[in-house]
Amino acid sequence: MTARPPGRPTLLVLDAEPLPRLGRLTGRVRIEHADDSTLARRLPYADVLLVWDFTSRAVRDAWPGEGPRPRWVHTASAGVDHLLCPELAASETVVTNARGIFEQPVAEYVAALVLAMAKDLPRTWDLQRERRWWHRDTARVAGTRACVVGSGPIGRTIARTLKALDVTTSIVGRVPRTGIHGPADLDRLMARADWVIAAAPLTEQTRGMFDARRFGVMQPSARFVNVGRGGLVVEEALAEALTKRWIAGAALDGFRQEPLTPDSPLWRVPGLLVSPHMSGDTVGWRDALGAQFVALYERWEARKPLVNVVDKSRGYVPGH
Amino acid sequence: MTARPPGRPTLLVLDAEPLPRLGRLTGRVRIEHADDSTLARRLPYADVLLVWDFTSRAVRDAWPGEGPRPRWVHTASAGVDHLLCPELAASETVVTNARGIFEQPVAEYVAALVLAMAKDLPRTWDLQRERRWWHRDTARVAGTRACVVGSGPIGRTIARTLKALDVTTSIVGRVPRTGIHGPADLDRLMARADWVIAAAPLTEQTRGMFDARRFGVMQPSARFVNVGRGGLVVEEALAEALTKRWIAGAALDGFRQEPLTPDSPLWRVPGLLVSPHMSGDTVGWRDALGAQFVALYERWEARKPLVNVVDKSRGYVPGH
Repeated sequence: MTARPPGRPTLLVLDAEPLPRLGRLTGRVRIEHADDSTLARRLPYADVLLVWDFTSRAVRDAWPGEGPRPRWVHTASAGVDHLLCPELAASETVVTNARGIFEQPVAEYVAALVLAMAKDLPRTWDLQRERRWWHRDTARVAGTRACVVGSGPIGRTIARTLKALDVTTSIVGRVPRTGIHGPADLDRLMARADWVIAAAPLTEQTRGMFDARRFGVMQPSARFVNVGRGGLVVEEALAEALTKRWIAGAALDGFRQEPLTPDSPLWRVPGLLVSPHMSGDTVGWRDALGAQFVALYERWEARKPLVNVVDKSRGYVPGH
Repeated sequence: MTARPPGRPTLLVLDAEPLPRLGRLTGRVRIEHADDSTLARRLPYADVLLVWDFTSRAVRDAWPGEGPRPRWVHTASAGVDHLLCPELAASETVVTNARGIFEQPVAEYVAALVLAMAKDLPRTWDLQRERRWWHRDTARVAGTRACVVGSGPIGRTIARTLKALDVTTSIVGRVPRTGIHGPADLDRLMARADWVIAAAPLTEQTRGMFDARRFGVMQPSARFVNVGRGGLVVEEALAEALTKRWIAGAALDGFRQEPLTPDSPLWRVPGLLVSPHMSGDTVGWRDALGAQFVALYERWEARKPLVNVVDKSRGYVPGH
């Protein structure tokens, strides 16, 4: 193990544009920068790693290498699947995430999609383009049923927002607890839901959980929304379920591979609404992420306990 | 005055397809049918007029003619502007409307439009058509301000729904009362609103109230939604406000002339979302309208006081 130089701690930032605003930490920390190609080399000299580029998988690749490792890793994202390798999970390094930034925006985005699908807005705007006046009867949202899969802060905020629109909403989580159903109830709840909303963390248990069998359980009038990681969904199975009209519609904001390339068949699946992983990203979100890290850093510097600490064996921040 | 024949009362239906389901009234009422061309001739022989064709203006035209007039007119619509002529307003005929059917659907439609505009969904779906992955930051809805113009049941339900999404919402009505602002506050509230929602009845006071001056009062980032009658809005002024970017966007579900013809310039105004007067029309709405009339008829038959009675001098059902 190389001894770290004394003095100010070293903060290594896995960069993405625009860079985080860390001016408030000037003079208190030595800030160094890495990209995917330099991360492995710089990692042994960092006390703290800020994963600002939350699309990179470089931490998973670099972490198992030689030398000391940062004592704390913060990711500017809700999900931690892109950095949690077994070696990091087994280490004493603390991992924190961006809990608190994305909940309300993602919940609003889900409400926007649910209401837009109920009111058939995509078709209305297609008709507008064709200058066609075609009145249709649409669906009420009040009184419908939703099943939110994911009992973390994002899933719970989605459920609260849908309930505010008078949607009867159930939440499914990894373990049953008050107000949260366990995985054993999932099929039954999906079978009677008008809306199935995927907002679970991506873990070995949840990868590919929305597959052909699960889409087959849903009602033909029901719709599916994924605002979690793309890996939750077997995309080919969803495309087939839509094409064969097993379900009435779907919206994906996350994909197995991002960005979606122009030749992806997903752009043109009938009844599928595609958006470029933006459900949580409201104006000012990057500044909010930067400010959140600075506040966490000041706790760390003052040796106060960190918040937003990820349970590395589960892959998310446990909570109520 | 011609004496009406004794026996069962005569219900005259101003028809539209699909016809109302009045089977429950069989044997208790003589049902006759009229269209725009026969209404004037049949009106003197009717005890009750059901304006099922709520797009027709034939009642306004036929009412001032010769002979007796129905004692009760019910319209299968929230608005009564299409039938209230001065002669009907001055008469002893009771007018009722479809209060109770459209509130929740219209409020959901407004929420759908507000969220879709905040989250830039129309552009997302344009980009999907072009197979383009283009991430944008969008707006939060929570914490924004709405001004709902119209303090009737529809306006109040819209306000309640927006408040449930944590939008700070003010209501403007004809007269100030608890929780409702008067017209004197309108410009001030519009000037600070992120969303201006038009849901007022169409009366001589409200016709053309959203004009160039009022769009000029709004913030450049604000958006306008009309789910009331088209006549509330000076359409040319709205088109100009959008084209010159005085405001950021608008959605119209009602138009001065409906249906909008293919050559209308409104289909292509930048930032304007057009929908074919369907905000209140959720699946089963016609059945609900028919059942509502049957229930009212049974009150009338039993000489119980009618509900949903329009104040003909104001042009809407007064309420809390």
